[in-house]
Amino acid sequence: MKQQKRIRDYGISIGSLPCGERNAITDVDGVTVGHTTLAKQSMQTGVTAILPHQGNLFKEKVRAAIHVTNGYGKTAGSIQLQELGTIETPIILTNTLNVGVAADAVVRYMLDKNPDIGLNAGTVNPLVGECNDGFLNDIRGMHVETDHVIKAITEAGSEFYEGAVGAGRGMSCFQLKGGIGTASRKVRLGEREYTVGSLVLSNMGVKPNLVIAGQPVGKLLSQLDKNSDASMDKGSIIMLLATDAPLIERQLKRMASRANVGLIRTGSFLGNDSGDIAIAFTTKNRVAHDLGQHNPHLVSIFEGHIDQLFNAAAEATEEAIINSMVTAEQVIGRDGNTRKSLQSYMASL
Amino acid sequence: MKQQKRIRDYGISIGSLPCGERNAITDVDGVTVGHTTLAKQSMQTGVTAILPHQGNLFKEKVRAAIHVTNGYGKTAGSIQLQELGTIETPIILTNTLNVGVAADAVVRYMLDKNPDIGLNAGTVNPLVGECNDGFLNDIRGMHVETDHVIKAITEAGSEFYEGAVGAGRGMSCFQLKGGIGTASRKVRLGEREYTVGSLVLSNMGVKPNLVIAGQPVGKLLSQLDKNSDASMDKGSIIMLLATDAPLIERQLKRMASRANVGLIRTGSFLGNDSGDIAIAFTTKNRVAHDLGQHNPHLVSIFEGHIDQLFNAAAEATEEAIINSMVTAEQVIGRDGNTRKSLQSYMASL
Amino acid sequence: MKQQKRIRDYGISIGSLPCGERNAITDVDGVTVGHTTLAKQSMQTGVTAILPHQGNLFKEKVRAAIHVTNGYGKTAGSIQLQELGTIETPIILTNTLNVGVAADAVVRYMLDKNPDIGLNAGTVNPLVGECNDGFLNDIRGMHVETDHVIKAITEAGSEFYEGAVGAGRGMSCFQLKGGIGTASRKVRLGEREYTVGSLVLSNMGVKPNLVIAGQPVGKLLSQLDKNSDASMDKGSIIMLLATDAPLIERQLKRMASRANVGLIRTGSFLGNDSGDIAIAFTTKNRVAHDLGQHNPHLVSIFEGHIDQLFNAAAEATEEAIINSMVTAEQVIGRDGNTRKSLQSYMASL
Amino acid sequence: MKQQKRIRDYGISIGSLPCGERNAITDVDGVTVGHTTLAKQSMQTGVTAILPHQGNLFKEKVRAAIHVTNGYGKTAGSIQLQELGTIETPIILTNTLNVGVAADAVVRYMLDKNPDIGLNAGTVNPLVGECNDGFLNDIRGMHVETDHVIKAITEAGSEFYEGAVGAGRGMSCFQLKGGIGTASRKVRLGEREYTVGSLVLSNMGVKPNLVIAGQPVGKLLSQLDKNSDASMDKGSIIMLLATDAPLIERQLKRMASRANVGLIRTGSFLGNDSGDIAIAFTTKNRVAHDLGQHNPHLVSIFEGHIDQLFNAAAEATEEAIINSMVTAEQVIGRDGNTRKSLQSYMASL
Repeated sequence: MKQQKRIRDYGISIGSLPCGERNAITDVDGVTVGHTTLAKQSMQTGVTAILPHQGNLFKEKVRAAIHVTNGYGKTAGSIQLQELGTIETPIILTNTLNVGVAADAVVRYMLDKNPDIGLNAGTVNPLVGECNDGFLNDIRGMHVETDHVIKAITEAGSEFYEGAVGAGRGMSCFQLKGGIGTASRKVRLGEREYTVGSLVLSNMGVKPNLVIAGQPVGKLLSQLDKNSDASMDKGSIIMLLATDAPLIERQLKRMASRANVGLIRTGSFLGNDSGDIAIAFTTKNRVAHDLGQHNPHLVSIFEGHIDQLFNAAAEATEEAIINSMVTAEQVIGRDGNTRKSLQSYMASL
Repeated sequence: MKQQKRIRDYGISIGSLPCGERNAITDVDGVTVGHTTLAKQSMQTGVTAILPHQGNLFKEKVRAAIHVTNGYGKTAGSIQLQELGTIETPIILTNTLNVGVAADAVVRYMLDKNPDIGLNAGTVNPLVGECNDGFLNDIRGMHVETDHVIKAITEAGSEFYEGAVGAGRGMSCFQLKGGIGTASRKVRLGEREYTVGSLVLSNMGVKPNLVIAGQPVGKLLSQLDKNSDASMDKGSIIMLLATDAPLIERQLKRMASRANVGLIRTGSFLGNDSGDIAIAFTTKNRVAHDLGQHNPHLVSIFEGHIDQLFNAAAEATEEAIINSMVTAEQVIGRDGNTRKSLQSYMASL
Repeated sequence: MKQQKRIRDYGISIGSLPCGERNAITDVDGVTVGHTTLAKQSMQTGVTAILPHQGNLFKEKVRAAIHVTNGYGKTAGSIQLQELGTIETPIILTNTLNVGVAADAVVRYMLDKNPDIGLNAGTVNPLVGECNDGFLNDIRGMHVETDHVIKAITEAGSEFYEGAVGAGRGMSCFQLKGGIGTASRKVRLGEREYTVGSLVLSNMGVKPNLVIAGQPVGKLLSQLDKNSDASMDKGSIIMLLATDAPLIERQLKRMASRANVGLIRTGSFLGNDSGDIAIAFTTKNRVAHDLGQHNPHLVSIFEGHIDQLFNAAAEATEEAIINSMVTAEQVIGRDGNTRKSLQSYMASL
Repeated sequence: MKQQKRIRDYGISIGSLPCGERNAITDVDGVTVGHTTLAKQSMQTGVTAILPHQGNLFKEKVRAAIHVTNGYGKTAGSIQLQELGTIETPIILTNTLNVGVAADAVVRYMLDKNPDIGLNAGTVNPLVGECNDGFLNDIRGMHVETDHVIKAITEAGSEFYEGAVGAGRGMSCFQLKGGIGTASRKVRLGEREYTVGSLVLSNMGVKPNLVIAGQPVGKLLSQLDKNSDASMDKGSIIMLLATDAPLIERQLKRMASRANVGLIRTGSFLGNDSGDIAIAFTTKNRVAHDLGQHNPHLVSIFEGHIDQLFNAAAEATEEAIINSMVTAEQVIGRDGNTRKSLQSYMASL
């Protein structure tokens, strides 16, 4: 497998803020990503794991928030995330019907690492996002197994592939091939520089609506390729945002909601069937599982400066979505269903 | 196994509204409940399934709402329930760490019944609630398996046991034995009579706070049994409400929030660790999966009459919690941990 | 005063759905709009009133929902709107610091029409939205008075001006003149045709970000006019959606959230300071204040058909925002602060 | 006017935590309360102002959260409170129909104190809560004026009356006289001691349901006084919680929701017509309006210790409600409508 060209490699820039070194969510120090890809005939699915840091996530939770734009989705773990404002496991992405097995696998992984869970340390809240890859994947086959999830977690690193890999293997985006994409932005607030990284699992949109960097590319593509079906905006998108800016939960929720700006810039109209869910976490201001009597000290960004982080979230998400498409190779899956790659059109644009 | 005496069998009435025939959630026509109980040494857990009606739930969804009082819990399926206002599978209750396997099992059950799911009918949203039974149960053993879930669904009926059965097998309530309890109320609005049924999975509270029918029983129990630990209000409660009153989603959410009134009347103070979640559904105003061009007609209760349903929800939930305790036999589980039955104190009260 | 050219009069179309007859929110049968404009030196403010129907709104409420994208705003009346899903007064828009007097005026207007309010019919919930027009208007002067509000209500009609009128008098949009704009769309669901109308009070955005019908006009404008300040996205937008499609509250909330799609298409990134609030109501499925024992019958749109209404909400809002700019004349207000009209640039685009 | 006996003066204790010195919300250092009472024939209403600290609230905001249990109410200012997590004005309580004039008065007061509001410091968000005192008060008369609000603010102090005073003048509680009540609790977390204070504006409940310190007093009262009307639970309650514990917004929201525990313990069942709203703020972790480039440092309570604060919120609110009744003298108001005082029954209990 080789890394595919990303949208910037075609000379197309999205937004105006500078990118991080890898232009990836892993530019946020400590964040890693791993995939298990299942690609064989009608089995076109997989798992992607995102680790917010490299320590024990249960003992040292990250502060987080979720913003549900359109809740036509089956993400597990959201209720506790909203109440306590923390993530305490790797974040798993997979296909819709395998959320259960993925949640189960995360619990098994966490029990293995933490012998006190279920005894005197309470339980653990697995966080699993999903999209429906049933167009390309034999989703009824429920092909994801416990070991696939564990492997995605344990092989996570700061370098990772985009496109038709991991949970993105069977996903469609604007009726072309979608999947996993990432990008990052750097912002300067006063003396300090912070990074905002985005990773998306893209699976929404109809072709005529696709916009790349402000250009209505979808209209052109629809002319090039007349025989595409004019179906509704089915599917979903999961948008993860990571930052090293020291936000608190309320601010993370505000930042998460700006992932939508990036989403809508690519041409989504938040269709009925599209479960659009954003989750944001910060690697700062961590929350210890056991603290004793001490009162934790936090840092917070002055709200008057938060616009730059909102901008970064919007731009990084927009670019991550386009990267998820342009890095994704064509996939022929279930019943010969095919999603072409945006790559094949790039010369014509 | 024999049915234990319920709180009314001791001559104690809760509230003032009349009960339904069985004084159970299954007084709402079409609702059934089934259990799988796993009780062997340190394995003290199980599954309870609630079926909102006896048809194909995916094809004919019930309108529903969720109210999260305290989201320190891992209930799966809540996001779509909130967005679309429907339940489309049996509702499963189990222990916290087996939510994943239960969700997976529900998906398998639904795929089996609906050959179009995952092909041309979208996916399916399993709804699974949980409490942490780790005090009595070897919860790290993750003893619930797919077949246990299927069995609870397929054996569901309108008559069912309460107490230390099904998902309630390992639960604790006010530091005594808790578990599954149920009750119902009848209300008359104009010409029509409606039923509100409650079923709880109780697993919260500290002993000194227990109140039964307005009597501060917990204080007395604490004196009778000095050596109990004065721990925090850990645990959770799942409170299900079913009705045949034709509510819409907004009204169901309002009714769901009144389950808390019943909960607090039993002495809970909604402690930090107690994930308190209420779900309400109506068997009327069903939502077809495929409708074609027609606009569905609904009926709605005039808001000025809704108080009686709120009252019924509060009373039925209060009695269901007390029933979950008084019908539960003593259980000795993991590491010899023991929860006595409220039964053993009833003579002294 | 004469009606200014609207964006379609320049040959620029937004979106693909057909417009209603007036391309205005008043294409939804029964809806009327009225303005009181206060424009004299540093007083540049006013009131806009939207009447959902022409009967007694208190006795016959409209079903409605609110979606708060960014709650940095002072809209009054939202709590009851969310709980009961109804609007029972004219909707008033004005400047931020006059929300109080506007709410007071609406109460007085309603008391006058309904002698039973405050006696045996409960109280009344005025709904007042606002934006901060302090750049052009001497907002500290608190110039809006009771009579201005009453006049806007009583003079409301199905024909009304856009631009720098009513509550829009002092507003800024993308650092040009903003204010009141409107548009509508028609959608066909099966046998029936429905209208979705949008009316906005626009007061957000920075010039370089302005996008008109997919064209990055703001970049060009910034080059034409170098000395503009590069300030943050301050201000707000109130987006009203009216429809005659028979939705219920949950669906209205989903539709309201799609107003954001239109907003973001014009170039907003939902900045920190921009309170972005959408309110949607339907003229169908009305709610009687006094009903007696009857259970109201409702109609609902099948969720699988709702995408067209979402699309209509997005398109109408996008066009309403652009109309609010292109119909607004230049205003010189407080301290000589000036907002040029987009009109003056239209020839250069 | 003389201070009436409070519930503890009758030898009745509520809960188990120790009270603060005054057993009042003003035990939280810096908090003050002021009233304007309008009591003349059918005019039986007023204003109560709560100042979270004695500095400039706009320049130094307090962190806060709102929990809406039942949103059948007209509280103004909630949207920004939820988004930004701050209160920046005195909190005003008054009758439902005078929310507008009260909000207007707060704006005028704030403009007077802050010459930069509306120019270069943005606008200001007045926070006004209300209940419907129309049973005793000629609420249609709209008797509250700007000066009444200013007076309540400027005369606020750490000593204040309870009962039929200020905004509480015309309120009813469990069909007896209600109004303003307060209480406080002290909790020890590790080395530090914190105070939680509650102040309520009580206006809900039906007589048979009243519970005092666990005793079903309402049943007895109903027997003593047969001719009372068996009406529905109309009215509302506003419950304010102040603390000097250094919470963040998410935690304040959790604490606010525990005010309901106190409310329900007094016998409320959260009836349809009862708008039940809780607002919590902390005097620690303040938010500067202008900060420059610095990142504010916060302290937070470890979540595992928060139960004591929840308990304190519940107990203080329960006692505040009972105090609002027992300190309230009988009032004869509009049309001779009368609410007896709980005082007159205390000898019989």
